[in-house]
Amino acid sequence: MPSNNQSLRDKLKMGTFRDDPTSSEMRHDWLADRWVIIAPQRSERPDDFVKRRAVAADADSCPFCFGREDSTPTAVATYAPAANGRQKLDWLVRVIPNKFPAVNASLAEFASADKRPSRGSDNGQVGTESEDRIELFKRRDLFGAHEVIVESPLHLQSLSELDRETAGLVFRAYRDRLGYWLDERSLAYAVVFKNVGQDAGASLAHTHAQLIATDIVPTDIARASDRMQLFADRESACLFCRMAEDELEQGVRVVERTPNFVAFCPFASRLPALVTIIPIKHQAQFQSLTDEQTDELSWLTHRMVRRVERCYPDTAYNFVVQTAPTSLSCSSAFHWRLELFPRLTKVAGFEWGSDCYINPLPPEMAAHNLRKAGV
Amino acid sequence: MPSNNQSLRDKLKMGTFRDDPTSSEMRHDWLADRWVIIAPQRSERPDDFVKRRAVAADADSCPFCFGREDSTPTAVATYAPAANGRQKLDWLVRVIPNKFPAVNASLAEFASADKRPSRGSDNGQVGTESEDRIELFKRRDLFGAHEVIVESPLHLQSLSELDRETAGLVFRAYRDRLGYWLDERSLAYAVVFKNVGQDAGASLAHTHAQLIATDIVPTDIARASDRMQLFADRESACLFCRMAEDELEQGVRVVERTPNFVAFCPFASRLPALVTIIPIKHQAQFQSLTDEQTDELSWLTHRMVRRVERCYPDTAYNFVVQTAPTSLSCSSAFHWRLELFPRLTKVAGFEWGSDCYINPLPPEMAAHNLRKAGV
Repeated sequence: MPSNNQSLRDKLKMGTFRDDPTSSEMRHDWLADRWVIIAPQRSERPDDFVKRRAVAADADSCPFCFGREDSTPTAVATYAPAANGRQKLDWLVRVIPNKFPAVNASLAEFASADKRPSRGSDNGQVGTESEDRIELFKRRDLFGAHEVIVESPLHLQSLSELDRETAGLVFRAYRDRLGYWLDERSLAYAVVFKNVGQDAGASLAHTHAQLIATDIVPTDIARASDRMQLFADRESACLFCRMAEDELEQGVRVVERTPNFVAFCPFASRLPALVTIIPIKHQAQFQSLTDEQTDELSWLTHRMVRRVERCYPDTAYNFVVQTAPTSLSCSSAFHWRLELFPRLTKVAGFEWGSDCYINPLPPEMAAHNLRKAGV
Repeated sequence: MPSNNQSLRDKLKMGTFRDDPTSSEMRHDWLADRWVIIAPQRSERPDDFVKRRAVAADADSCPFCFGREDSTPTAVATYAPAANGRQKLDWLVRVIPNKFPAVNASLAEFASADKRPSRGSDNGQVGTESEDRIELFKRRDLFGAHEVIVESPLHLQSLSELDRETAGLVFRAYRDRLGYWLDERSLAYAVVFKNVGQDAGASLAHTHAQLIATDIVPTDIARASDRMQLFADRESACLFCRMAEDELEQGVRVVERTPNFVAFCPFASRLPALVTIIPIKHQAQFQSLTDEQTDELSWLTHRMVRRVERCYPDTAYNFVVQTAPTSLSCSSAFHWRLELFPRLTKVAGFEWGSDCYINPLPPEMAAHNLRKAGV
C-alpha cells in the first residue's frame, strides 16, 4: 500500500489514471461486463455534491433564460416561434453544447464515419471475450456529444408548463438532434433524457433536456437490442408491436392512446408509476417521426407529465427517449420508446446489491390512478 | 381501453393481477430478462412516498429503542453484552422479522429444501428461454425472508457510533442470519444491506440493517456468478483473489488493509467513493467467517464508514454484503464482498436509460481522499 504522503499527481503519473485528468474515459467492469464512464471534469459542475431541498435556481441568474444567451456556449440549433406574434422572442427552443460534458466532445465534430479514430475490433460494439487473456483494468476513450435542449425562453420548471407550440418544437429538437448525431455524424448510440427536480438528478431548474451521443453502445442497450432481435427471430414479430397489441387488448395498464401512440404502465415495471410511450406501428428510430406525429407525441407526453404531477405533486421525474442504435446489425428490430418515471422511491441497498427492484405500486394500480387524474 | 368507471377490483379479478393484492409476486421483464418484485403491501409502509429533508424519527417513539420491543415482531435472535457490566441491557443486537416484508414470508418458515413448493424446472435458477412460446406476462410467486437487524439498544444513527463490542456482534448477526437462511433453510439467495439516511432509502433513523432471502437468484447475481466461473475456467484463478493481489500491488486504489481483508475503491466503480471490502484469501461464503475474522471485518467496516463520514459529512450511505448463492453450480467460484457507498450523486435519466453510469470521481482520487481522512 502506498504511503499517504505520495501525492495524487504522482499516482496519476504512474499510469493508473489518464495523463489528462480533465477528460473522460470508459472503464470495463469485467464482472458485470459493463462499461463505466469516468468523467472527473463532471465534479466541477456547480451542483454536484451540494445538498439542497429542491432545485430552485434564482431566475435572476439562470443561464437558460432569454437574454442570457451569452452565459452559455453558442447555440447549435434554435427553433423560433411561428410568425404570429411573440416578436420579442428570437427562439422558443435552443440547443447548446453542455458546458460540463460527460463525454469527450472535442473529436466529435470530426467524427464522421470514415474519420473517426479507429479502435480496433471495437467498432461501436461493446467489447466481449475475444481477447486471449482477461484484462481486469481495461480502458478506452469515449467520444461523442453532450448537448442541452433549453425548452423555453421563460423560467418554467416543467414540460407541463409549456404551451402546445413550444412542446411541439421541443420534440422536434429531440428528433432533429438524434438524427444529426446518429445519421449525419454516424455515432453508435444516442439518448435524449430529462431530469426534473433534484431527486431526479437535475442541477438547474429551468426546463431543459439533454442529449448524450457516444461512439459505443452501452452493454445494456446492446443486450436489449439482442433481445428484441431474438424475439423477432422466434416470434416473427416485433416485441413492442406485440406489447402494444396485448396492452390495448387487456386495457388495464393503458393510460391513454392516441391515433399513433399508446401510453401504458409496463407489466414488470421496476419503478412505481413508470409510463412507457411507444408508437403502435413499428418504428425503429425516433428520428423517423413526421412533424405531425411529433406534435401528437409531444402533447401526449405533456398530458402524461400533467397526470403524473396531479397524482404526485412536487415529485421529481425523469424521462428517457430510447431510439435504435445505428451500429448494430439488429437495429431494424428495435422499436423506439419513451419512458417517463416520477422519483417516488429511493433506490436502496437491496436494489443496488441484487439489481432486483422492489416496486411497491402494481402497474395496474398506477395506470388506474393516472387515468383518473384527468387532464 | 377500459372505461375509467370500471373498478380496480374488477380489473384485478380479470386475472391481470394476483387474487390477493397484499402479497408479493415477481414479474419477468422479457426484454431485460430480469425479474421484478411487485410488492403492493410495501406501499403501506409509513414512510414511502413521504418527502422529508432527513430521516429524523423522534427517539421518543422509535420502535427499535430498548424498552420498546413490544412494538415490533418478536425477535428471532438477540445478542447480549458480555457479562462485564451494562447489566441493564438484555441485548445489544436484535433480529426481528420485517413488519413490511418485500417477500412472502409465510411459507418461508416451512421452506426446507424438500418441503419447498415445487416450481417446475425453476429450481432456484432464473428462468431462461427453454419455453416454446415467449411469454410476455410471466409471473411467479416469491418466497423467502425479510428481517431487520437492530444494531443498538440506543437511538444511534450510524454504524460509526457503535462501540467495538457491538459492532462485532452486529457482524456476527449478519453472518449467523445468512447462514440460517442459506444453509439451514436452503434458500437460493440472501443479501444483507444497510440504508442510512433518507437518500439511501432509509425510513427509520435508528441504526439497523436488513436481510432479504429469496427462493430464486436474481438475474444479475446469477450473471455475476457465471462471470466468476468463467474467470476461474479461463484463468485458473478466482477473479477477486486476483483483484486483491493486483490492487495491493498497484496500491493506488487501496484505502486500508488488515491481516485478512483489503478495502479499496474498485477500478470501474459506478458510484463515487464506493468502497469494496473482500477477504484476501478465497472465501465463497460470508457465513464461513470465524468470530475473530468477523470482529476484524466489523472494525474495518466501522473505520471505512468513519472515513466516508469525514470526507462527506451528513451524506446518506448504503452497504451490501454479497455472499455466494447456494443453488448455483458455480457457487464455489464466488468470492464474497461488502460494498459501501455514500449517496453523493443522484441516478439521473441517462443512467436509467442506458444503465451506463457516469461517475464524476475517479476511484484513485476517492481512495486518496479516504486514506487522508484518518480515523
